[in-house]
Amino acid sequence: MPLVRIDLVRGRAPEEVRRLADTVQEVMLDVFAAPPGDRYQVIHQHDAGEIIAEDTGLGIERTDGVTIIQVTQQGRGREQKEALYAALAKRLDEEGLVRPTDLIVSVVRNEPEDWSFGHGRAQFLTGEL
Amino acid sequence: MPLVRIDLVRGRAPEEVRRLADTVQEVMLDVFAAPPGDRYQVIHQHDAGEIIAEDTGLGIERTDGVTIIQVTQQGRGREQKEALYAALAKRLDEEGLVRPTDLIVSVVRNEPEDWSFGHGRAQFLTGEL
Amino acid sequence: MPLVRIDLVRGRAPEEVRRLADTVQEVMLDVFAAPPGDRYQVIHQHDAGEIIAEDTGLGIERTDGVTIIQVTQQGRGREQKEALYAALAKRLDEEGLVRPTDLIVSVVRNEPEDWSFGHGRAQFLTGEL
Repeated sequence: MPLVRIDLVRGRAPEEVRRLADTVQEVMLDVFAAPPGDRYQVIHQHDAGEIIAEDTGLGIERTDGVTIIQVTQQGRGREQKEALYAALAKRLDEEGLVRPTDLIVSVVRNEPEDWSFGHGRAQFLTGEL
Repeated sequence: MPLVRIDLVRGRAPEEVRRLADTVQEVMLDVFAAPPGDRYQVIHQHDAGEIIAEDTGLGIERTDGVTIIQVTQQGRGREQKEALYAALAKRLDEEGLVRPTDLIVSVVRNEPEDWSFGHGRAQFLTGEL
Repeated sequence: MPLVRIDLVRGRAPEEVRRLADTVQEVMLDVFAAPPGDRYQVIHQHDAGEIIAEDTGLGIERTDGVTIIQVTQQGRGREQKEALYAALAKRLDEEGLVRPTDLIVSVVRNEPEDWSFGHGRAQFLTGEL
């Protein structure tokens, strides 16, 4: 937790995809209160045309580098989410991976009872986490 | 927002997939209170066998045209959701894209603070949206 | 309902993927209060490297067999979720499909109004379900 789905357009080298995922994870650790090793990422690579993103009239221009990050998590508040968005945009831009205009983030909340990280146990309930 | 995942079985021409996505978006604009440009769609095309849909005993027969639409959104109520389901079924059927018996829709709710549409900002909180 | 996304690494024979999905469904019927025919599964097969799972410091070692199951559902409580995790781990292990150390489960909740299983109707609201 968080569980992070990253949807992007096919065409990046595997090393670049990994660097993108690594950068997302660094942000999780730095500003989203993820403890060490708390990394659960699923990358969906799509053909051009399988991600369609406009801009809700915000005046944002998208390219084929458009990247949608959907985060399922529990426990974070509004300020942490705002810090997440800002840090993802800044770091992915600094690394030359995703333009701030190509980054869309959506968060979904669940509860501690909604997670099992292995062994069929709900580690937030057992006290293991 | 909404963020719409469309899962379907591979085999349609790219133009047909696009038309399907366009039709879903028209419904979002017409009955689901999406403003112009509010389009965020991810299409997952699957091999046959990767989408398994039965019918919960409803007497609905599925084909390889089965399509699952998962909508993450905030703010809509029950009547808007009912209108969404009805309009999706009607329009996708009229266009010859998805049979009403092959259409499954699931909605997930989040909050205004759970969205960033670009620039690392939470546009529902900043007043931009 | 539930809508179950199963993310796994490519490389299993189609029959094995089917058996994995079947086993997940058996657990839904047995311990998660799914009625007969209540099966809505989407399988996402990924290249190695597209699923990155660590262990939040729990001392769990992952392999290429790592499998993430995301369940969108309404109505189940904590005990049913704990039974789900335990039964998924046990049954998928017994069948030689997923090691208990490779199984990650995340649940998301929605409401009865959030489902349409066909014909554009919200069957939990119409009384059909």
